[in-house]
Amino acid sequence: MSKRERLLIVGGVAAGMSAAAKARRVNPELEIVVFEKTGFISYGACGFPYFIKGDVAAMEQLIARTPAQAARQGIDVRLCHEVESLDLARQTLRVRDLAGGKTFEEPWDRLILATGAAVARPPLPGIGLPGVFSLRTVEDALAIRRWLDAQHPAQAVIVGGGYISLEMAEALAAHGAAVSIVELQKQIMPSLDPDVAELVQAELTRQGVAVFVDTAVTSFIGASLLHDITARVAAALEGQSGTGPLRVREVQAGELHLPADMVINGLGARPAVWLAREAGLTIGPTGAIAVDERQQTSAPNVWAAGAAAEVYHRVMQQPAYMPSALNANKQGRVAGTNAAGGQAKFAGSVGTAVVKVFDLHVGHTGLTEKAARTHGFTADSTTIQATTRAHYMPGHGPIHVKLVYERGSQRLLGAQIVGSEGVAKRVDVIAAALQAGWTTEELADLDTSYAPPFAPVWDALLVAANVANKG
Amino acid sequence: MSKRERLLIVGGVAAGMSAAAKARRVNPELEIVVFEKTGFISYGACGFPYFIKGDVAAMEQLIARTPAQAARQGIDVRLCHEVESLDLARQTLRVRDLAGGKTFEEPWDRLILATGAAVARPPLPGIGLPGVFSLRTVEDALAIRRWLDAQHPAQAVIVGGGYISLEMAEALAAHGAAVSIVELQKQIMPSLDPDVAELVQAELTRQGVAVFVDTAVTSFIGASLLHDITARVAAALEGQSGTGPLRVREVQAGELHLPADMVINGLGARPAVWLAREAGLTIGPTGAIAVDERQQTSAPNVWAAGAAAEVYHRVMQQPAYMPSALNANKQGRVAGTNAAGGQAKFAGSVGTAVVKVFDLHVGHTGLTEKAARTHGFTADSTTIQATTRAHYMPGHGPIHVKLVYERGSQRLLGAQIVGSEGVAKRVDVIAAALQAGWTTEELADLDTSYAPPFAPVWDALLVAANVANKG
Repeated sequence: MSKRERLLIVGGVAAGMSAAAKARRVNPELEIVVFEKTGFISYGACGFPYFIKGDVAAMEQLIARTPAQAARQGIDVRLCHEVESLDLARQTLRVRDLAGGKTFEEPWDRLILATGAAVARPPLPGIGLPGVFSLRTVEDALAIRRWLDAQHPAQAVIVGGGYISLEMAEALAAHGAAVSIVELQKQIMPSLDPDVAELVQAELTRQGVAVFVDTAVTSFIGASLLHDITARVAAALEGQSGTGPLRVREVQAGELHLPADMVINGLGARPAVWLAREAGLTIGPTGAIAVDERQQTSAPNVWAAGAAAEVYHRVMQQPAYMPSALNANKQGRVAGTNAAGGQAKFAGSVGTAVVKVFDLHVGHTGLTEKAARTHGFTADSTTIQATTRAHYMPGHGPIHVKLVYERGSQRLLGAQIVGSEGVAKRVDVIAAALQAGWTTEELADLDTSYAPPFAPVWDALLVAANVANKG
Repeated sequence: MSKRERLLIVGGVAAGMSAAAKARRVNPELEIVVFEKTGFISYGACGFPYFIKGDVAAMEQLIARTPAQAARQGIDVRLCHEVESLDLARQTLRVRDLAGGKTFEEPWDRLILATGAAVARPPLPGIGLPGVFSLRTVEDALAIRRWLDAQHPAQAVIVGGGYISLEMAEALAAHGAAVSIVELQKQIMPSLDPDVAELVQAELTRQGVAVFVDTAVTSFIGASLLHDITARVAAALEGQSGTGPLRVREVQAGELHLPADMVINGLGARPAVWLAREAGLTIGPTGAIAVDERQQTSAPNVWAAGAAAEVYHRVMQQPAYMPSALNANKQGRVAGTNAAGGQAKFAGSVGTAVVKVFDLHVGHTGLTEKAARTHGFTADSTTIQATTRAHYMPGHGPIHVKLVYERGSQRLLGAQIVGSEGVAKRVDVIAAALQAGWTTEELADLDTSYAPPFAPVWDALLVAANVANKG
């Protein structure tokens, strides 16, 4: 071992590369090595649906930093290197070079786990068929885009009705596919209250997306690629038989049979913690790696950040599982600072998220009414409909605001906002109110900006707060 | 006098009618009479530029409530009734019926002054010429629109470079006029810092608006209406002489001569306090009527609300002059509640404002750097440029954020934001931060919403806060 202290980072996406860059700035002497099992680092996975849709011309635009750029900062990135195990006592990693196939041992003085999340992949018959995709890595996104360009699927089925599924519905529809969404729970977007999710489902229906809720996919059925006449003619010209390779042709959910030229497995992601668990690090009740406010795990010299780690929820005042790109970036910086010998703390977050669903903007922050009740709050709620701009202005549209607050104290617990525009930053206003610990009365005091092109005199947030205060 | 207690309200726009409606709800027994000197009540004056531009088809859309609708709520509205004086000892008003010409006395038990603001009208030669307009009332807006439709002005000059002037520049340009703005001060939008105002001026220039700063208008020159050939022919056909009535033809500012087929006097408005002052009510150092948090004036049973009254500035922690539609509505409700025997307080505001200037959205809240220094703060500032959406998304544009904060404590004092979209609600986030008394560190902790169509992972507000925290 050299005299330079050695920081190893497992995972080179948002949290890992944020940690690496920050550690480098804090400590120019540190040796920093990042192991990334895919072929890409620093990619903006949230942009994948827009790359697939065609809004983003080239995948390169989604990649913030290449290994060569990292190298210039003195960060040694090893692509296609998978970490297989972690020895806390000996302070070593066992790493497999996926290209060469060899495994070797790497010693560390400090370690950051940024292993992210892994797509839930239920053991359903046919899930391995060509045409069934997950969407987590650059490779996944490229494969989906290639399939769309080559196969021009007429029918697409998305399994799961969360954020990425809804973005993918828009992306696949833009390629001309008839899209169905199959969701196991009684509503799409289970992270929203049912009444708010209904507004989103109405938009999907309006856009021609078939939505099946309360429906469990049971299997994926394959068929020969050569079902269509063009392919059959081409095969005949090449003297091939008519069978050809299998690909997905149908999604079965009990009695429901949905034709499918492609399937997106959008069942959501779980924290990738097996490395940490095997090594004996504490896993929190959420299933993610337990960390303190310095992002330190239960072991000395080991930090964790990003979608593998818990996040302190400022409304619930306890750790939660809230993977987001911003949390990953913030946690990465904190872990990197501390691992490099500096001092930093992560204040936690309030659970903010936003998504565009065709022409509808959908966002939430804090707790839904059902989550508030699950967590023991005596929650009330107020839902109002207003307009995004002055009602007489061209381009105005409806906006729905649901405020959730504690009965008696009127302390805000969360909000869900759905509208034609201006949702994301209104959600941020509530995120600020949650961070400040405001009541609905304090929200009603807010001096919101007014001009007819941007809001009514009484912004939707104030209307909701005023109604909540009378309730 | 009847046994019913009698509430008189002077002024029937935002503050006055909010007060009337609230007083009615709080006290169904009260007699409520509103005196409004114009022919309209409850109008949204902020919508006038969009009516003039043509975005709003009919003036009726800007009128929230008619006298008949008010009457159904038991609110007696007297249009075209100007209050000429106020006797505090006898609790009476002297009112002139502008249509009939008579004056009469009206007794009150409680009184709310919602006299609004009056346009500054400097005694310049020619300011009374046809074609020189102010914009404050429905009648003003209709007259401007009629002038545009009848005269199709090729050249328009706007005197003053504040919010309404910039909205009017867009409106007049939409009618095909070449627009010039003449501003006395060294920058347009004196409510912004000079560096931010420069961004706005660049947009005006880009849109073909000529901007003259540091320039004092000295006179308006008139000429015969019959300068153009069509009118001259029409007059000749009717056997008229070639002179015709005068109208504005030129704006002079020292050596500068600007041709003008119409002029907008956009010199801003001052609180209309002469009634209050004559009656002996306390006028604050800002020039507006001094009120307490219950909107009560220095006299018992007399409240004031809206653009005639001071507003408590939550950042400066002292009364200020901050006329806005939202403040007027909030103050009106508080005054109406208290005047009707209820209990309400106005928490004040942080000075939020936003305006659309052609394709640029411009907003600010709290104090500018220069205002902060004027008011004795040791202020630092940070200005950053970011993008409104993820940089790879179609439709993203630049957004500039200037944060102003107290040196040492890092307490936020204000922000100015200029960008292609998403400005108004980002301003609201800072308004919340100001209300909560946050530092730049607390702003950096904010869990802002992220999805590529709405913001980058690190929203412009967080980027600004992070830079400020390193400074």
